[in-house]
Amino acid sequence: MNKGILITFEGPEGAGKTTILQHILPKLQANGVDIVATREPGGIRIAEAIREIILAPENTAIDGKTELLLFAAARRQHLNEKVLPALSENKLVIIDRFIDSSVAYQGYARGIAVSDVEMINQFATDGLVPDLTLYFDVDTDIGLSRVMSGNREINRLDLEAREMHEKVRAGYQKIAEQNPDRLIKIDASQPIDAVIADTLSVISRRFPEIC
Amino acid sequence: MNKGILITFEGPEGAGKTTILQHILPKLQANGVDIVATREPGGIRIAEAIREIILAPENTAIDGKTELLLFAAARRQHLNEKVLPALSENKLVIIDRFIDSSVAYQGYARGIAVSDVEMINQFATDGLVPDLTLYFDVDTDIGLSRVMSGNREINRLDLEAREMHEKVRAGYQKIAEQNPDRLIKIDASQPIDAVIADTLSVISRRFPEIC
Repeated sequence: MNKGILITFEGPEGAGKTTILQHILPKLQANGVDIVATREPGGIRIAEAIREIILAPENTAIDGKTELLLFAAARRQHLNEKVLPALSENKLVIIDRFIDSSVAYQGYARGIAVSDVEMINQFATDGLVPDLTLYFDVDTDIGLSRVMSGNREINRLDLEAREMHEKVRAGYQKIAEQNPDRLIKIDASQPIDAVIADTLSVISRRFPEIC
Repeated sequence: MNKGILITFEGPEGAGKTTILQHILPKLQANGVDIVATREPGGIRIAEAIREIILAPENTAIDGKTELLLFAAARRQHLNEKVLPALSENKLVIIDRFIDSSVAYQGYARGIAVSDVEMINQFATDGLVPDLTLYFDVDTDIGLSRVMSGNREINRLDLEAREMHEKVRAGYQKIAEQNPDRLIKIDASQPIDAVIADTLSVISRRFPEIC
């Protein structure tokens, strides 16, 4: 049985997940919490090798289903080698992206049936569900402006990215509606200090023993 | 719609699949048949990269479900890039290993629920089923003696291999029983010339137009 706590961070690019994680880690550690912070896809050697295939710029031919299966393979191995052992040692594990990313990106945004994505997630994780998921919701334009460098003219790819971004956001909204107890939405359009404060507040309310 | 013919070769290591394929290809091509002969996992660049992860000697930590998901990802991409385009061009496609290998190896031999393996196969292939599957059945000791080099003493790993081999063979027998129209069993314990003759005979009976 797992004795630790599993928290996942979800949201589109530009929501600030990585920055927020960097800020809250030392605060939690100062309270004596034993934390493993990791990310998907990756976190271990085999999963990083899979990540390279997924992200390699020349692999434009990869279709949505191939992508989903590769993410699921990386997730499975990452759980086995890193997440489950840490949970069994009573640690707090925070993963940057987990099952909801597959539903939002490959499901709602790329158009693979959400029931199929959930089935693959279930198979890969043996049904492991996070104790808490923080969904960092960000206005599409604010998110994109954080991702993109500056003031150049918007091109076709930026527009595609914007449509994709909107679909991902709408997908996360649906996941949040369907999992009101597990997913807590945080307004990541705020200045970063306010987002960090909200994040710590949500974690401390849910798990007073670690905050 | 696919207009070509899809034949798959299945069986344990040591059944002689690769040798048989090399012998029958020129005979079919001499009849003017346009053939694509390929293999799993691999056959295209992205799938070969996935194959490297699956087969790398240092990746002993890969568990059965990770392995199955990687095979499925490679299968999906191989179908999209190579098999489906060839079938749509009315070609004969012969694949060395396909869906039944996942059921026999990751299902029956490694112990993943066969219904789960079939579900992942269905997802990865969109339900594509071969027109004909040649199952090269070989006595376990004959198969192992073909794989192994010689007369050295049998060690623990050889014994494990033998048990695995038996499970794979038993799995293929069940698949053959459940798919009597699609799977034709060929006695691959015979001398190779007899196996080649049987293979051509089965193909010509099923598809007289290409033999």
